[in-house]
Amino acid sequence: MSKKEIGSSSVSTEHLWVHDPREVLRARPNFLLEAMDRADTPGWSGTSREAQAHICSITPVLSMLQERLFAASKEGSQQRVLLVAQGLDTAGKGGIAKHVMGLVDPQGVHLHAFKKPTEEERQHDFLWRIRKALPGPGMIGLFDRSHYEDLLVPLANHQMSDAEFIERVETIKEFEKELVDNGTHIIKVALMVSYQEQGRRLLTRLDRRDKQWKFSSNDIDVRGQWRTYQEVYQRILPETSFSFAPWYVIPADRKWYSRLAVTEMLARTLADMDVDWPTVDYDVEKERERVLATMAPESIEAYDAKREKMIRKAAKKNARIERLAQSLA
Amino acid sequence: MSKKEIGSSSVSTEHLWVHDPREVLRARPNFLLEAMDRADTPGWSGTSREAQAHICSITPVLSMLQERLFAASKEGSQQRVLLVAQGLDTAGKGGIAKHVMGLVDPQGVHLHAFKKPTEEERQHDFLWRIRKALPGPGMIGLFDRSHYEDLLVPLANHQMSDAEFIERVETIKEFEKELVDNGTHIIKVALMVSYQEQGRRLLTRLDRRDKQWKFSSNDIDVRGQWRTYQEVYQRILPETSFSFAPWYVIPADRKWYSRLAVTEMLARTLADMDVDWPTVDYDVEKERERVLATMAPESIEAYDAKREKMIRKAAKKNARIERLAQSLA
Repeated sequence: MSKKEIGSSSVSTEHLWVHDPREVLRARPNFLLEAMDRADTPGWSGTSREAQAHICSITPVLSMLQERLFAASKEGSQQRVLLVAQGLDTAGKGGIAKHVMGLVDPQGVHLHAFKKPTEEERQHDFLWRIRKALPGPGMIGLFDRSHYEDLLVPLANHQMSDAEFIERVETIKEFEKELVDNGTHIIKVALMVSYQEQGRRLLTRLDRRDKQWKFSSNDIDVRGQWRTYQEVYQRILPETSFSFAPWYVIPADRKWYSRLAVTEMLARTLADMDVDWPTVDYDVEKERERVLATMAPESIEAYDAKREKMIRKAAKKNARIERLAQSLA
Repeated sequence: MSKKEIGSSSVSTEHLWVHDPREVLRARPNFLLEAMDRADTPGWSGTSREAQAHICSITPVLSMLQERLFAASKEGSQQRVLLVAQGLDTAGKGGIAKHVMGLVDPQGVHLHAFKKPTEEERQHDFLWRIRKALPGPGMIGLFDRSHYEDLLVPLANHQMSDAEFIERVETIKEFEKELVDNGTHIIKVALMVSYQEQGRRLLTRLDRRDKQWKFSSNDIDVRGQWRTYQEVYQRILPETSFSFAPWYVIPADRKWYSRLAVTEMLARTLADMDVDWPTVDYDVEKERERVLATMAPESIEAYDAKREKMIRKAAKKNARIERLAQSLA
């Protein structure tokens, strides 16, 4: 049973989103990180099981929208998506890569995880390595950490003056504006795990042999800066939540919710882009004739016998997914 | 319902492989392409439905083996996998990328599709662009077309002398030997679609609006060279099916079979590599104490209440997948 088949048999779950996650999660100027319950599931009225079912039901939509985006790029469209994921250790950035990006054709996905800058990277402007990793036209890119590390880390370590901060925010704003102007739809998600849940997740990494490789002693040292990082996020998020590239702040103590929310926001963003299958510039009938001229009569006959049914089935499937896509937009 | 859960509830399907696909598909010196029925399903005794069920049942194994490979690289292992996919237009190379590579965590996958060489690429040795796209340690790489295009295309267009052919084969042999010696497990698959089925697939692309963008008028021109390409494949495959990097020639008229066969060969290759979870170099107990010292008593209590059950559940799941993995090796 493929993911698509699961989707097609599911019951409707869209109504379980009582608010658009992009509305309820968006970091506005008056955003208060401290007021956020990290175990909350904003906008979603269903259970974790229903969340799984919902993800299954929108996977074919996501799949089709991704393919259309990809197809459009072959006809010259510059549109693409960039998902930026930030969050402390154990917040679930890797889970977004695996469980959200894993839903679509890997040929249309471009992942990049940014580590501590290398010697070479440090000799360049902080955006140098970021630019090199940007998704091409038609692609869905995911940044696991990003240029926001270049605000977070220096601020947390008190290595950045107010003037430098303001300047860097301005540079980032111009950079993201440039991307948006060139056809990139930016979705920035900050995954916010609570201090206690982070502790439990670190314990789990230590207690399960299949997770021990993910643990580093340094994680506990960085955990010592948890409070500092909250203050830094509180400073950065409202400041860099631009109208053209807002931040979505996601309570991340329930992994199923953060994956659901990111999947939904990605699907709705794609649905809003409303990319149709490209109009081709060749003469379909003429090309059909050329292909037919190369085929054996019995082979054409076998094809023709199934042709109507195949076209009808494909059109029906497309129409069903299309309706689902429109309900998301 | 996740892919993993589907897998866990499936019945055993492994016995439907009556022969190891790597044995029955391998191109040996006496290999005859013409003798191959392209609608055949060598080694597999089940139906297409059972093939779907089998893929579901080995997906968690594939997933775990991929994660172990990835984890091992963090401890310095150089092991990695490179899947090379060759085949004419419509043979299903993209389907392998989508449906086989799509089964595992995209963070562990590195895809590269080689197009007609660019101006810059043509100014370098033919392996220059290939080397740049190789998977890093711990990764599963997929080449959609490869350095074999640099044999196929010049031979098909009569632009390569026998001496040049022999020399280039030698260069490729040394190159692949170098990769293998450095920890790369190479799986080369040639997807072989019949002339009539290629015609039907081109018609389908023309008849379905969601597939029209995949069609290019040039595909029919290349189809005119179908016979020539068969001869060229017949010449190349036995010649470059090295003991350390053999070719597997896959009848590709049934898409479900070629995807099943490649999935199975990938899973068996990973199972044979027998990579275990890395042994960590830190003191687990000491690190546990450090984490516990940062946590609230009620949080520790809540964790401890679930700890035993979580460890038991994870161990059980790992053991089950481990057994499946061993049955593949």
